[in-house]
Amino acid sequence: MTDYKLYYWPMLQGRGEFVRLALEDADVAYDDVARSHGMDAMLSCMNASNGALPPFAPPFLVTSDLVIAQTANILLFLGGRHGLAPKGDEGRFFVNQVQLTIMDLVAEVHDTHHPIASSLYYEDQLEEAKRRSTDFIATRMPKYLGYFERLLMRSDGPYLLGQEHSYADLSLFQIVQGLSYAFPSSMRRQASAYPLLTALGERLSQRPRLHAYLSSPRRIAFNEEGIFRHYPELEAE
Amino acid sequence: MTDYKLYYWPMLQGRGEFVRLALEDADVAYDDVARSHGMDAMLSCMNASNGALPPFAPPFLVTSDLVIAQTANILLFLGGRHGLAPKGDEGRFFVNQVQLTIMDLVAEVHDTHHPIASSLYYEDQLEEAKRRSTDFIATRMPKYLGYFERLLMRSDGPYLLGQEHSYADLSLFQIVQGLSYAFPSSMRRQASAYPLLTALGERLSQRPRLHAYLSSPRRIAFNEEGIFRHYPELEAE
Repeated sequence: MTDYKLYYWPMLQGRGEFVRLALEDADVAYDDVARSHGMDAMLSCMNASNGALPPFAPPFLVTSDLVIAQTANILLFLGGRHGLAPKGDEGRFFVNQVQLTIMDLVAEVHDTHHPIASSLYYEDQLEEAKRRSTDFIATRMPKYLGYFERLLMRSDGPYLLGQEHSYADLSLFQIVQGLSYAFPSSMRRQASAYPLLTALGERLSQRPRLHAYLSSPRRIAFNEEGIFRHYPELEAE
Repeated sequence: MTDYKLYYWPMLQGRGEFVRLALEDADVAYDDVARSHGMDAMLSCMNASNGALPPFAPPFLVTSDLVIAQTANILLFLGGRHGLAPKGDEGRFFVNQVQLTIMDLVAEVHDTHHPIASSLYYEDQLEEAKRRSTDFIATRMPKYLGYFERLLMRSDGPYLLGQEHSYADLSLFQIVQGLSYAFPSSMRRQASAYPLLTALGERLSQRPRLHAYLSSPRRIAFNEEGIFRHYPELEAE
């Protein structure tokens, strides 16, 4: 039985992947609508003039009685229902804070290849993309990753909040995977500064359900339509 | 008695203003720490190596037992405690979704004047800023504002959820104020498409506490250090 419908672009990981990782790790049944029924099924739901309040953009999750959009908001919902976040205020708001910081990083990664406009081709903003990527690799990436590493240093376990992982830990795994795909030589060069972040990802990817997902066809490969894109010229500096 | 300490840059509205509007409208006592005690008080709190988990960046709110960072996260907390959001799941996640969409818009507004790097001067990314602003005014601004207007059309009251306003309504007020400051002629030209959004702002600004705040010295004037900056050359197209 399928509990949830997830609506996201079917050909890329993108922001939807943060939701997929939580659903897969929590062993929650879901229908990845645009992948199983085509993109029209998603677009008609977005443009529906009746029913629930429409989302601004994918991903969005449809339950028996809710439509929830915005990645961090979906994860806040799933975290509370499926044991991927603490119940208490301190832990819950902390995990949400880390997730929102991760989403800020994700937006900055997107803008390394689209610094002028999402509506323009990459090739039409290539010079600006090079300039923005150079700054991203030199200042922004170490600032974010260094912050996450410090959070892990303060923890008394391998995860942000100790021995139990949260959806924000799963998102950190995805961040390291994505940045390693997009900027492989920069990540190799910087990796020694983030031993706990690296170890967190290795530990999570050995969890049986996550391991099974990552080696299944449900895990879309990174590609140049997603957030994390490998354009060697952006790393050339 | 002061319930909360708000930490934010003292010389600009920025993201902190979304929090100030909620605190002021809800009549919650707060200490605007960097404004009342200087910036060092904020920086030393951010760099403290002991105590609560540190925020990535201001704004952050300190209560008797919590440190909460990320604007939308602070508002989620305040909304639940001070009647600025519904208690039920549907309304609560919807208000959070709208707020996160507003924060995405805020990040895009920031990047109209800093499309390459926050660490560089505006003057050193002026050509890119012109190009990004042209796209923002032509495609992104109408996309976001049109979405918010459609949400208000579906509501059965002047606010997003009907007769009662939420923190997201206060943030919509701030968005219209800020965009009108940054891009006055574009907003004048587009305003007729957003009658409900305009009316929402006028209605909110007449609420006695908000009205008193907006005409007090606590309301910092818009300026060219904040998110919403008026650079006439960015609107010249």
